This record gives sequence, structure tokens and C-alpha cells, in this order.
Amino acid sequence: MEELTILPQNPTPTVSILGGTGQQGRGLAQRFAHAGVQVVVGSRDAARAQETVAAWTISASATPVRVADNASAVAAADVTILAVPFATVDLLLQDMHPHFRSGSLAIDVTVPVAFTAGRMAMLEVAEGSASEHIRALLPAAVRLACAFKTVPAHLLGAGIEPLDCDEFVCGDSDTARSEASALVELLPGLRAVDVGPLSRARSIEHLTALAIAINRRHKIHDARFRVIGL
Amino acid sequence: MEELTILPQNPTPTVSILGGTGQQGRGLAQRFAHAGVQVVVGSRDAARAQETVAAWTISASATPVRVADNASAVAAADVTILAVPFATVDLLLQDMHPHFRSGSLAIDVTVPVAFTAGRMAMLEVAEGSASEHIRALLPAAVRLACAFKTVPAHLLGAGIEPLDCDEFVCGDSDTARSEASALVELLPGLRAVDVGPLSRARSIEHLTALAIAINRRHKIHDARFRVIGL
Repeated sequence: MEELTILPQNPTPTVSILGGTGQQGRGLAQRFAHAGVQVVVGSRDAARAQETVAAWTISASATPVRVADNASAVAAADVTILAVPFATVDLLLQDMHPHFRSGSLAIDVTVPVAFTAGRMAMLEVAEGSASEHIRALLPAAVRLACAFKTVPAHLLGAGIEPLDCDEFVCGDSDTARSEASALVELLPGLRAVDVGPLSRARSIEHLTALAIAINRRHKIHDARFRVIGL
Repeated sequence: MEELTILPQNPTPTVSILGGTGQQGRGLAQRFAHAGVQVVVGSRDAARAQETVAAWTISASATPVRVADNASAVAAADVTILAVPFATVDLLLQDMHPHFRSGSLAIDVTVPVAFTAGRMAMLEVAEGSASEHIRALLPAAVRLACAFKTVPAHLLGAGIEPLDCDEFVCGDSDTARSEASALVELLPGLRAVDVGPLSRARSIEHLTALAIAINRRHKIHDARFRVIGL
């Protein structure tokens, strides 16, 4: 397999996915494993997650997916992907705070929307966006990027068909954005679009809300975006 | 020329464009004229606007573009397009309030962003979005749709090359959305994507902010969006 060069200092990074048995986490775990990445699925209940992961259909050429409790997954991670529901992120990050490796990269993929009485609405977040909220909960020595917020979980989790869309990446650290972009582009059919500082996360989250609105109104599942002219 | 059927009750609507000599207004005026629409460019200074419009390059097959002062343009309009800077919309709509025809359609294309010290930021709008702000300023008998917010003004004003992107339409009136969508699709290369109630306008405005951020960061002019999977 071709050598990965997504992290200049570490061509074979360990990517831990918290919430890795959920729809979006599973899709990311399977697709990264097929791309040759060392994947650790983090879970509150590692034994149960192990059963779940053992039942996945992953081709023999993929890198084996490991399973660990959340704290061990974070402690092992060059990159920690936060693929948990936004409502659970505060408690999780409180517990995980001591376990992050200094200099490691966190990627926030949460979507701050709520469904009440069949209507989808974005949650107000005091910090401006879910990503900025999460920034405030992470150790200062952990870099943060926002990515994988607009690719539909449904499509992500459906096999490994090419995704055919753009993924928007932002963050206040240049290396966080470039490493997250490299991870995005490891997945066939995804192009990373760097949109700048972490404060742009709110616009990306609005894009996800728009995709959900389009899905519901037009009775489809996989609305996503492509930037034209770039 | 093929008969227009964009307004069921009126196949040849008059579309008045306030701010019609600005970059975005000019692009809309020229493209609608080429599509066979009766266009009136509204201006504070009709004599000066007349000179401007007379200098436009419009093919002989296009419908002639008329010019009028803003109040006359609004009074004549089946559809009034608000293509003025967001900062000027309050005073303008205060003056125009008595002139709107009952049952007519207004289309808000304003973008609530500001540039300070070279940085672009979205303006907070108490009502949630520029479109909802404008809704509160319009007569109740005027229907409102949000459209043409994400197509780049630069590209819109550059001849009549096909635009090759999607335009997001929202509004609380079903007919406002369907008529605005029909107008969007009169322009070659534009597809209308109905995203539902007017409260979705904020997400559309964030999309515009994202396009501006992409333009600035990647040193391009015409970033725009296509929905994949629809």
C-alpha cells in the first residue's frame, strides 16, 4: 500500500474515532480503514463495540480496525475524531481532557441541530459554533479542525462508494487545517476546501442544516455540496 | 420568443430591480432582459441610471430595459428585486412602502456582511436574517422570497455566460417560492433549490459568507455551489 503522508512527522497516524459505532463514525472508520489508516474505534463500552465492529464488512485489503474504551482511544491518537452527538460532547470532553496527547489533532464533526415536533432547527451555541464550543473544552495543546460536517452520514455509512462532494475545513491552526484536509482527501471522491479560521465553523454548520432541510423537503437522503469555480 | 409562464396569472411579468445599476442588479437586469422579461431598473436618480443603462451591451434580441425612479419602478412591478446594499434597505423600504402593489412579489438578494480592516464578517440581524428583517419592513400584502443570494455578483455581471450553479430559494408563501424559483430557472445554468420557510434565509446568507471566504482565501472570484444528490 502506498505510504501515507498526511502528517508530515508521522506517515502512519493513528486515527481514533469517538462515537465510532454511530452512523457517521462507522462510515469514517470503514472508509479510513480502506484508505490504509490505523483506525481505533472508541466507545464507552469497548466489549460491545468490539462485537459491532466484528460484524462490519471490511475488505481484506483494509487496515484492521481496533476497538478501545474512549480514554485509551484518545491516549493512542494522533488524530481524535469527535463523531458523537453534539449534546453529549461536554461530558465526554470533560472525561477525556487528561487523556489527549499534547500536539495531537482533534477533528470536530458534530452538527448542532435539534429535531422537535418534526422540525429541524439549529441550536444556538454561546461560543458561535459547535466547533468553537469544543475548542473551549479541549486542552490548549490539542489543535482543532472542523471537517466532515457536511458529508451525509447516510452516504458515508453506505459502503465505500465515492462521495463526490466537497468537505469544508476550518481551524485556527494552519497545520490543523492542512492535516485535516489531507485526511479528507484520503477518502475517494472528497475534496477539501479550506475556508479559514475556526470562526467559519458556524457557516459550515449552517450548510449542514441546509442539506438536512433539502433532504427532508425533497425526500432524498444524501444532499451535499460542491463548490463551483474553485 | 417563447411565452413566459413564470407567474401563472401573468405570463409577461414586469420585474423591477432596485439597485439595478449596481454589479448584482446590472447582472440580473441584463440576464432577465436576455430571457425575455420586462425589466425596469429602479434608481434614486433615473436620469443618471438612464445614461448607465444606455451604455450597456445588450443584444438586439433582448427585451428593452426600461429605467424609472424607485417609486415608479415599484409601482409598476409584478416582482420587485431588492438588489441594494443591506445597509440601505431600511430607508429605501420606508420610502417604498406605499408604492408596492398588493399581491406582488418581492425578492431579497441582499447579503448582510461587512468588511472591516480587510476581514469579512456577517452582520448580526435581530430578526435572524436579512430576509426576515426585510419581511418586517414590507407591506403584509407583498409576498417575499429570498433568492439570488449565492450567485456571485462578479459572474452575474460578466456577460451572459451560463452560471452553472444552484440558487437557494426560501419564503413563507408557497407561491412566492414557486414564482421566485421560476425566475431563477429563466437564467441559463441556474437551478432553483427550494429550501422551505423564510427562516432558512440565515443558512443561505451563511452560504454566501462561505463563498466570499473561499474567494478571498483561494484568490478566485466566482465560488458558488451545486447541490449533489438532488
